[in-house]
Amino acid sequence: MRQKIAIDMDEVMADALGKLIRLYEKEFGKSVKQEVLQGHFLEEVIDPDHKHVIREYLFEKDFFQDLEVMPDSQAVIFELSQHYDVYIVTAAMEFPDSLSHKYQWLREHFSFLSWKNFVFCGDKSIIRADYLIDDHPKNLSVFSGEPIIFTSPHNVHETRFRRVNNWQEVAAMFL
Amino acid sequence: MRQKIAIDMDEVMADALGKLIRLYEKEFGKSVKQEVLQGHFLEEVIDPDHKHVIREYLFEKDFFQDLEVMPDSQAVIFELSQHYDVYIVTAAMEFPDSLSHKYQWLREHFSFLSWKNFVFCGDKSIIRADYLIDDHPKNLSVFSGEPIIFTSPHNVHETRFRRVNNWQEVAAMFL
Repeated sequence: MRQKIAIDMDEVMADALGKLIRLYEKEFGKSVKQEVLQGHFLEEVIDPDHKHVIREYLFEKDFFQDLEVMPDSQAVIFELSQHYDVYIVTAAMEFPDSLSHKYQWLREHFSFLSWKNFVFCGDKSIIRADYLIDDHPKNLSVFSGEPIIFTSPHNVHETRFRRVNNWQEVAAMFL
Repeated sequence: MRQKIAIDMDEVMADALGKLIRLYEKEFGKSVKQEVLQGHFLEEVIDPDHKHVIREYLFEKDFFQDLEVMPDSQAVIFELSQHYDVYIVTAAMEFPDSLSHKYQWLREHFSFLSWKNFVFCGDKSIIRADYLIDDHPKNLSVFSGEPIIFTSPHNVHETRFRRVNNWQEVAAMFL
């Protein structure tokens, strides 16, 4: 039986942070430097008066529709899908308006994956797989298989999990 | 740690078959008897020329929006949620237009459940729970915990799984 790899969407396959930064910089005419983001979420490094807009951006109906694909994710996930059962597992329920957009985004950019392998959930403790590649310690810490942290600015100081910095490192680990 | 019970939606919490029969009877002026349905899916007992309409009904954007709630499911699932971690696990990905309607239906009729406990997936082999209550043998047979079949006309001849005929029997089993 093939091993199962569960893969998170935002910050792992889809560049949600990149879009948030662009929207914020455009609205407030400020620039967010990569250095100040290290170890922090975007909400933590911007003017506290503007903090609420980040969640507003996320809750906009079309936010997830046109996210950029993370570098090399398509090619590497395609290769993984030849050797493993790959499931895309995203905590989409927090943003119910995003459900169909996330589905369409996956169909558009990862058309080689079946919809049978998409999982939209809230809490990832319900997932049974051998590996979970995710940027969020809160998801990785409740996962029953082997957790693998995918580097994102907010998680750079996290030391509890095996780490991959990009999709080339995922390829090196699994292929 | 509390045990996890995964519960399927259609035919277990939501009366999808009842709506399909009503739509079919209305469109074709025919009556579908409960006796002929025993051991069969609706598509198998109607005029083969009309078979395609069943999937058309299911793919209509609002099909899942106004399904009736299965008798006693609200009260029993509420009680279950006091003693177990209850997850609603539906193979919604086959009907991507249904995703937001299924979410809204759950929020409306099972408002005591958190969205964190909703799972919309394709293949239920990805689910890690202690129990799965489902009407479909294909879901139960790939589940890693204890499968429990919820009686629906199509599954009455299935003998591989522990069976519950209604929500009162679920209550008797778990509470």
